[in-house]
Amino acid sequence: MDKQKKYLLSEKEIPTQWYNIQADMPNPMLPPLHPGTKQPVGPDDLAPLFPMELIKQEVSKDRWIDIPEEVRNVYKEWRSTPMVRAYGLEKLLDTPAKIYYKYEGVSPAGSHKPNTAVAQAYYNMKEGVKKITTETGAGQWGSALAYACQKFGIDLEVFMVKISYNQKPYRKLLMNTWGAQVFSSPTDLTDSGKKILAEDPNSPGSLGIAISEAVERAAKDPAAKYSLGSVLNHVLLHQSVIGLEALKQMEMAGDFPDIVIAPLGGGSNFAGLSFPFVHEKIKNGKNIRCMAVEPASCPKLTKGEFRYDFGDTVGLTPLIPMFTLGHTFVPAPIHAGGLRYHGASALVSQLLKDNLVEALAVQQLECFDAGVKFAKAEGILPAPEATHGIAAVIREANKAKEEGKSKTILFNLCGHGHFDMSSYQDYFDGKLQDHHFTDEELHSGLNNLNTPKI
Amino acid sequence: MDKQKKYLLSEKEIPTQWYNIQADMPNPMLPPLHPGTKQPVGPDDLAPLFPMELIKQEVSKDRWIDIPEEVRNVYKEWRSTPMVRAYGLEKLLDTPAKIYYKYEGVSPAGSHKPNTAVAQAYYNMKEGVKKITTETGAGQWGSALAYACQKFGIDLEVFMVKISYNQKPYRKLLMNTWGAQVFSSPTDLTDSGKKILAEDPNSPGSLGIAISEAVERAAKDPAAKYSLGSVLNHVLLHQSVIGLEALKQMEMAGDFPDIVIAPLGGGSNFAGLSFPFVHEKIKNGKNIRCMAVEPASCPKLTKGEFRYDFGDTVGLTPLIPMFTLGHTFVPAPIHAGGLRYHGASALVSQLLKDNLVEALAVQQLECFDAGVKFAKAEGILPAPEATHGIAAVIREANKAKEEGKSKTILFNLCGHGHFDMSSYQDYFDGKLQDHHFTDEELHSGLNNLNTPKI
Repeated sequence: MDKQKKYLLSEKEIPTQWYNIQADMPNPMLPPLHPGTKQPVGPDDLAPLFPMELIKQEVSKDRWIDIPEEVRNVYKEWRSTPMVRAYGLEKLLDTPAKIYYKYEGVSPAGSHKPNTAVAQAYYNMKEGVKKITTETGAGQWGSALAYACQKFGIDLEVFMVKISYNQKPYRKLLMNTWGAQVFSSPTDLTDSGKKILAEDPNSPGSLGIAISEAVERAAKDPAAKYSLGSVLNHVLLHQSVIGLEALKQMEMAGDFPDIVIAPLGGGSNFAGLSFPFVHEKIKNGKNIRCMAVEPASCPKLTKGEFRYDFGDTVGLTPLIPMFTLGHTFVPAPIHAGGLRYHGASALVSQLLKDNLVEALAVQQLECFDAGVKFAKAEGILPAPEATHGIAAVIREANKAKEEGKSKTILFNLCGHGHFDMSSYQDYFDGKLQDHHFTDEELHSGLNNLNTPKI
Repeated sequence: MDKQKKYLLSEKEIPTQWYNIQADMPNPMLPPLHPGTKQPVGPDDLAPLFPMELIKQEVSKDRWIDIPEEVRNVYKEWRSTPMVRAYGLEKLLDTPAKIYYKYEGVSPAGSHKPNTAVAQAYYNMKEGVKKITTETGAGQWGSALAYACQKFGIDLEVFMVKISYNQKPYRKLLMNTWGAQVFSSPTDLTDSGKKILAEDPNSPGSLGIAISEAVERAAKDPAAKYSLGSVLNHVLLHQSVIGLEALKQMEMAGDFPDIVIAPLGGGSNFAGLSFPFVHEKIKNGKNIRCMAVEPASCPKLTKGEFRYDFGDTVGLTPLIPMFTLGHTFVPAPIHAGGLRYHGASALVSQLLKDNLVEALAVQQLECFDAGVKFAKAEGILPAPEATHGIAAVIREANKAKEEGKSKTILFNLCGHGHFDMSSYQDYFDGKLQDHHFTDEELHSGLNNLNTPKI
């Protein structure tokens, strides 16, 4: 029984270029619009917020973009990440399916987020930026950027969604350890925060609100830039290192996935693993299903509308062409904080519209049950966000069993749950429940939306 | 600057045998004694507590002992562990020393403990054992054994030191997730626990007390065995996989350590990394210093006495020839719960007596400071136990700088601190302090000891 469990690349084999799906989309994404003029935004509109190199990447059509050596040197601290054969889970499910997971939880921050955090901090450093502002939900992104900013000597301010700030004090502490300042959002440090607090002093916050605060803070400070952990094209670009490694690792395993699965909050986790496989689909006609899994309490891909919408709650960002529930939609307070976002990245949205990827919404109790099964079978305790992928994997593995068919499934185990133990505590204590929105509730954020339709 | 950061072995290169230092010691360790007869204990004395295969390993003089295939297959879930060049820490310290760390925190339980937990659970399973009892301090050992017992279908009861049970609820939850029952020790489930509670109802517990409880519980249940996470020879044997991998990885790096450093609680962490290097010292006359680092609040190696003593507080275990502060010594309530143990393994003690290894005691504030420096420089947040090794590394790296000498240092980063964040919180909040015992206090546990002197 000398079966290989893990597939790892040498440091020399870590990809030297990111993959840019904009080079290969049958229909390019529509341009983001300036919220005032409703005209496509140009580099000058974005310059107050982002360094020029990231703005270039945002609109680039080059298929391959070099990863700077300094970024690769930091990647080496944890990359390549292992691709692991889930023998334990296969046995537990008694399935003919072969299940592999790409484990991004080995990074110092414990998730896939440092892949882009390090790149973003690097480009900011190169252009002389001294301070970055950002938002974070469960804290995965904030801690990744704190780690990255520390590497390149940049100050960081994090606006952390209040409900997570209270639920996950240790993620805040981790950010502090790496030198970041963390605020519980909404704050009274910004006009956006004050506006929300005036309407509801007990607002639990949301990613959309925290984005408004971080964007406003950077826009008003000439020495500061803003950094976003998902949604934008350059973020998805940096995450492609996950799928590029997985392609090589699948080759080592002598296998190839029929289905690629990942959770979706803004889209970078899903895109990171799946876009290099979508490339195989477009380029070589490979028959692969790529499935984004979202929480049923925030189902923009399965229940939202494809139209222009703001990336934040207050309405400061450009208008993005995306699947959205409306920028004022407040998701149920589930524990997968990283997935509580009203919209999906423009790139993923366009691909979904073109049927190159698919989507599934799952309730949280099914996800926690899947997470505990995984911890028992494979040892690793997954982050609540990651359990969404596992729940979909279990559905597909059970389907394979019913159909009596072998099938190869690859999913992104995007992070560990070591800082999310309070969620598991609540789950074990029976305190969690599913949230069944009515269609009316789900469309409440879309009904009065006065942003352009597509 | 294309410098290699991590050294990893393929699954085929994971050691197939453990290294047993009993084959090579210039002076063999003295035999453990029966507490009643004061005669050397035989296999029959130990049979109520341990499966026969582990009893054989306890007294074996074979240099190499095969690692069963089933154990190697579980090892593959996280082994080999990386040996990492600490470029970041070297830079921070501006030292000419080359620093490497062996990172055991990648295991599912987050420490080196599963190396023996998996082996012990396996041998128990092979001999038909259905239930195991054990103790745990900070919870590293308990969670490792919970993970291992889950793998082999064995029930587990964990007696967790009360102070840690309260400080680290998430480690308890992790054990529960893997199916273990966890009790806050002292309990009223055992006579040992009742005795302690009668003397002090508010006893914070200690490893020694928890061992008494777990041993008593197993001894009274014919279907149960007991498992210990450190101190015993077979435990140190299983941990040798760490140093054996590190030897190969040092060869990959084209380097060899001048100093090997690891924290010491009972001794398995230190032995695991260092014994294969002590072997090089004995066999090939290599000039290597092997340094065990203990907390100043529990300094058995540097301030204790080499004599026979009990392994537990109540006095149920065989008498072990070891450096000890006396089995009734109560260490200060520092946060490195895994190091709060009155004695050191007999093998490490004998080697210390024979000057083949050395010891250093460090205060906890220096350790936490070292841990935060490491987290900033290398990304990984170390467990409080692991920071003891880092503090010693920093001292040696600073010495190298003063002396203007290059020097190669290898240390065991035995675990991450994700479940120890409350300790870091207390440290950042200024709530931690050093404990300066007087000599009188340190010898209080030895003064009335009526166990045999050596």
